[in-house]
Amino acid sequence: MRPSGREIGQMRPISIEIGVTKHAEGSCLIKAGDTHVLCTASIEDRPPPFLRNTGLGWVTAEYGMLPRATNTRSRREAASGKQQGRTVEIQRLIGRALRAGIDRSALGERQITVDCDVIQADGGTRCASITGGWVALRLAVNKLLKAGIVTSDPILDHVAAVSCGIYAGQPVLDLDYAEDSEAGTDGNFIMTGAGRLIEVQMAAEGATFSRQEMGKLMDLAETGVAELVAAQMAAVG
Amino acid sequence: MRPSGREIGQMRPISIEIGVTKHAEGSCLIKAGDTHVLCTASIEDRPPPFLRNTGLGWVTAEYGMLPRATNTRSRREAASGKQQGRTVEIQRLIGRALRAGIDRSALGERQITVDCDVIQADGGTRCASITGGWVALRLAVNKLLKAGIVTSDPILDHVAAVSCGIYAGQPVLDLDYAEDSEAGTDGNFIMTGAGRLIEVQMAAEGATFSRQEMGKLMDLAETGVAELVAAQMAAVG
Amino acid sequence: MRPSGREIGQMRPISIEIGVTKHAEGSCLIKAGDTHVLCTASIEDRPPPFLRNTGLGWVTAEYGMLPRATNTRSRREAASGKQQGRTVEIQRLIGRALRAGIDRSALGERQITVDCDVIQADGGTRCASITGGWVALRLAVNKLLKAGIVTSDPILDHVAAVSCGIYAGQPVLDLDYAEDSEAGTDGNFIMTGAGRLIEVQMAAEGATFSRQEMGKLMDLAETGVAELVAAQMAAVG
Amino acid sequence: MRPSGREIGQMRPISIEIGVTKHAEGSCLIKAGDTHVLCTASIEDRPPPFLRNTGLGWVTAEYGMLPRATNTRSRREAASGKQQGRTVEIQRLIGRALRAGIDRSALGERQITVDCDVIQADGGTRCASITGGWVALRLAVNKLLKAGIVTSDPILDHVAAVSCGIYAGQPVLDLDYAEDSEAGTDGNFIMTGAGRLIEVQMAAEGATFSRQEMGKLMDLAETGVAELVAAQMAAVG
Amino acid sequence: MRPSGREIGQMRPISIEIGVTKHAEGSCLIKAGDTHVLCTASIEDRPPPFLRNTGLGWVTAEYGMLPRATNTRSRREAASGKQQGRTVEIQRLIGRALRAGIDRSALGERQITVDCDVIQADGGTRCASITGGWVALRLAVNKLLKAGIVTSDPILDHVAAVSCGIYAGQPVLDLDYAEDSEAGTDGNFIMTGAGRLIEVQMAAEGATFSRQEMGKLMDLAETGVAELVAAQMAAVG
Amino acid sequence: MRPSGREIGQMRPISIEIGVTKHAEGSCLIKAGDTHVLCTASIEDRPPPFLRNTGLGWVTAEYGMLPRATNTRSRREAASGKQQGRTVEIQRLIGRALRAGIDRSALGERQITVDCDVIQADGGTRCASITGGWVALRLAVNKLLKAGIVTSDPILDHVAAVSCGIYAGQPVLDLDYAEDSEAGTDGNFIMTGAGRLIEVQMAAEGATFSRQEMGKLMDLAETGVAELVAAQMAAVG
Repeated sequence: MRPSGREIGQMRPISIEIGVTKHAEGSCLIKAGDTHVLCTASIEDRPPPFLRNTGLGWVTAEYGMLPRATNTRSRREAASGKQQGRTVEIQRLIGRALRAGIDRSALGERQITVDCDVIQADGGTRCASITGGWVALRLAVNKLLKAGIVTSDPILDHVAAVSCGIYAGQPVLDLDYAEDSEAGTDGNFIMTGAGRLIEVQMAAEGATFSRQEMGKLMDLAETGVAELVAAQMAAVG
Repeated sequence: MRPSGREIGQMRPISIEIGVTKHAEGSCLIKAGDTHVLCTASIEDRPPPFLRNTGLGWVTAEYGMLPRATNTRSRREAASGKQQGRTVEIQRLIGRALRAGIDRSALGERQITVDCDVIQADGGTRCASITGGWVALRLAVNKLLKAGIVTSDPILDHVAAVSCGIYAGQPVLDLDYAEDSEAGTDGNFIMTGAGRLIEVQMAAEGATFSRQEMGKLMDLAETGVAELVAAQMAAVG
Repeated sequence: MRPSGREIGQMRPISIEIGVTKHAEGSCLIKAGDTHVLCTASIEDRPPPFLRNTGLGWVTAEYGMLPRATNTRSRREAASGKQQGRTVEIQRLIGRALRAGIDRSALGERQITVDCDVIQADGGTRCASITGGWVALRLAVNKLLKAGIVTSDPILDHVAAVSCGIYAGQPVLDLDYAEDSEAGTDGNFIMTGAGRLIEVQMAAEGATFSRQEMGKLMDLAETGVAELVAAQMAAVG
Repeated sequence: MRPSGREIGQMRPISIEIGVTKHAEGSCLIKAGDTHVLCTASIEDRPPPFLRNTGLGWVTAEYGMLPRATNTRSRREAASGKQQGRTVEIQRLIGRALRAGIDRSALGERQITVDCDVIQADGGTRCASITGGWVALRLAVNKLLKAGIVTSDPILDHVAAVSCGIYAGQPVLDLDYAEDSEAGTDGNFIMTGAGRLIEVQMAAEGATFSRQEMGKLMDLAETGVAELVAAQMAAVG
Repeated sequence: MRPSGREIGQMRPISIEIGVTKHAEGSCLIKAGDTHVLCTASIEDRPPPFLRNTGLGWVTAEYGMLPRATNTRSRREAASGKQQGRTVEIQRLIGRALRAGIDRSALGERQITVDCDVIQADGGTRCASITGGWVALRLAVNKLLKAGIVTSDPILDHVAAVSCGIYAGQPVLDLDYAEDSEAGTDGNFIMTGAGRLIEVQMAAEGATFSRQEMGKLMDLAETGVAELVAAQMAAVG
Repeated sequence: MRPSGREIGQMRPISIEIGVTKHAEGSCLIKAGDTHVLCTASIEDRPPPFLRNTGLGWVTAEYGMLPRATNTRSRREAASGKQQGRTVEIQRLIGRALRAGIDRSALGERQITVDCDVIQADGGTRCASITGGWVALRLAVNKLLKAGIVTSDPILDHVAAVSCGIYAGQPVLDLDYAEDSEAGTDGNFIMTGAGRLIEVQMAAEGATFSRQEMGKLMDLAETGVAELVAAQMAAVG
């Protein structure tokens, strides 16, 4: 019944390759099926201005999509002179999600910027960005720990995200583009390694949904995030 | 325990005054406690370009905050040359929410723009915008129906929104600014008059949350939205 | 002969309600007939950079119009990414006018920003902004005086403004939109409570005018401003 | 008493050289003392969109200042990404002034853009732009008449402008920069060849003014504009 | 003598992997040492407006660098709201270069946009973009030929580019970042497969150069481009 | 064979008038045939931020074209809100060229901005800007030397530029617009007074070129630049 032939609760194959660029303090290429996102984490010695002299650090994120990451070429945001509302919304989400897994006091007065650039898109790019972004962040923080710049691990837990939705009347896990563009309801669940919720975003796109359906979607998400956390563990060793 | 002395499940007083500007096809001033939002609905004869010759209409929303709607004056977005990420995010949310309650085919090839301008802010401006925006939309559609321009009512149901969050460890309903700025978790529930879900957005701001807490927040939201829908009914007669 | 049935030298009913928002140091809602403008005055502890260490303060103004303040919805300036020429011109005018009634040395090194947001427009919005803006400014300055932050009153006199024009060949006072859009000549007179001139702007829009007509317009303006100053006095007590 | 040694009612030497660029349909270099403005008029076959199928034409103006036209280099507006409020205000003024001297019906459905670029500034650039802009416009219209594209002269009368102000307590004519930066009150008078008023803009900059002073300034302006009109006549033959 | 230990006339290892994204009509990942550029070619059915009804097609290019492609993170151009001068310059160069190898009449009224996105930078990104961009273009055109949409091959010849410069007083081929940042003179040669010149850009960066040195640089470039053309041939079969 | 009747190696008449604006530290109006560029050099006491405390100075350039400098009026860049790619490319070129002739250490921690504004265009505006810009720079530096602010002359040599191209199959010197718009290949040579190369930019526009042709173009350029350097010498005395 799913276009890809997957089971209702079946994730796409996930792969996370680390150390893919020589310059970034942390980096990975995450592939969730045909969705490919390059994530890098860049450390700056100084926190953003609003945190000076607070002892706290900051984690922020930026998101971009290469113009031909999608089936039809979209206009380059740098050329059009502004980021689309969708881009802004996504990068704010990634930043909030990653910060929820960080002890900003242990990080100290520095900033880590996680860049998530979609090389190829097939649905679920924001979830892949969060899951891969966490890996890049973990690797960058490892460097700080190894160098003794940070002495207590500021990473509290894994952070990973998966999309769910109601496709053809049925709750399904990890929507690809074919499903996403037809789903009556879809959204994302961001969770910690321990299974606690960081963010829930579920929206009707053509059909409203019941509280019972919301419960089923959350069941699916819990199994999906567990799989992603396992893949993160495997990647960062 | 709440700064305002309200009960855990107690909403702020809600008032909706209609017909507040002489030009707009529909308008209201909604007050949820000290949060005051002016909502207007403007009808255009033509749909946006991507809907030409489809027989479908469109509802969109724009959101703004007067510079001194808040405790500290914020920079006027028109002067700074771009809308902040927060603004873009909110107006996209309002538009999606209102569209979920509309039969775009019954509306026909026209566009209704709902402007939500915050005159005074005390938390929950996006929820008040949705609840008040629906009233302005309802009034504008009434005009189309009365004039015989639209013959079948395109409004499927009420749309209303309320915020909830975990404040001082306790799930509470309808956060004001004092609570919002301290809440460990907060978010919004957008629902129909029939109690179906349109959008759920719940985010950890300092403390992750459990699935059980999510359930309690949803219980609170259901009673809050019911109250808002009653206020909408009273306002539009 | 006037669309509204008013006499040639008759003003629209004027009302000034003060204290309309809880956050601003000074605020009022001024209504000149169907033209409604919300004016707030915000105090900042620091002067603009070019006045640092001069002992002088600054008063500036910003002007905006809600998208549906007018008969046809206009594009939101924050969304279009820049303020229109008309907006820029008006807010510069308001700022200059209010500064003309201020002793910047008595104000000291601080800045007061007067925001004038048009809720509903029916001609004469810049004049209503100046007249109402002065009230908001007066109230904010009262706060500074009461708190002992400023010890000598920096407000030298009232500042108020009225429009005049030649409509259907006849000089008339306080144009509404119906007149404004048809007037051969129109403009604004900004004056002090003592009747001295701050700014005169009179422009031919379709028909040039004689020096004699200019004189008659100024006669009308003098009576109009006197009425406005009385309304300001009544409002601020 | 004037820094330049001029009499109270004495204009700076005025020169208008026509035909200074080979591409424009009309052009001149106007020099009012050390203020030098290059004015060109460019004809387009089509009117702006809002005038299509109305039979009416349009005259518009743009104003710019070379970065080092002034004593201190100012930032290039093209580089800063927007025109300053002052620029916008001035070019709107020039456009309105020139349109006041045009029969837009006789001009027919075409647009003439008058560009006024200040090569060197010493006060009074907007007035020089209007006076020189009219000459460029006159020359471009002559071309249309000569080619038989326009058959009835759309130019109704000369349009010229001069600044006046109260300097050192005394009304003076044609302020240069040294006076302009010190004047308590200054402004511009735009008039036709027949001596009728097109626009009056007089503003207090530090000292309010009386109606009597306003009268004296207008007397000065009348003699100044007469001189400028004579110079225009000499230039266009 | 070269930081990398390469001979004066020795290129970095070059690899070109094709078909790297599933959406684009043509794509490759080109690696010149540690410089990695993802190139995609996107076909649009319509030419740009200025070529409508001319029978001619267009090839254009856009260039971007991921924020952490470099040693220090640079600001995302989409976020800063404009493309830097360097970016604009490079993408204009790539577009001109690729058009020089195209028969725009044989291409017909369509447009191909070549996007070159630098994943990792180590000098010579514009040359790699041109060489890889040609491969993406070749593959996209192959698709048009195979589908019979275009019947005569519009590609006239290979287009490839290499940098040269004077490093430590010695002309060297294919500068990497360590050399590029120290070179007294550097630039790029863009050539066809037949060895004809498309573009020469050689600039003094600290030390001017002689005509004789220019000749030696051109000798080096000729051998470099020949190697690149061979790699293109191997890649596209 | 050339539209202007000139010989293959014949330059257009060149004139350089100095001291054309009263405010700039150095200025000239350069005319290369019908191409007229106003060049000014402005000295600032402080270097750009990236050079603070390095002991080095900076020379930068900005380029603009008046809207009606060309045959058809082009849009004012200040009004369109951004500089075109062509403008950015040209002003970067002028800046690099002039810096190549400067000892930045002898200049000391200050910045000179050279503004090149095209009053009338007929091809070769960037070359005229470089040649004239050098004259303005020379005059400004003379002022610094004369005032004893700079003690050792930071100008190393003349910098001048000329365009060449292949027109109607023949290499020709100093293209005017009629030639430029038809040339198969064209470009610019920037050289010092001693005949050393600063920058070579030669690009195929419709027809690729051989190394032999490149040589002939360089021969022409050498004679052209020698003539320009002589004109510079005559101008600065």
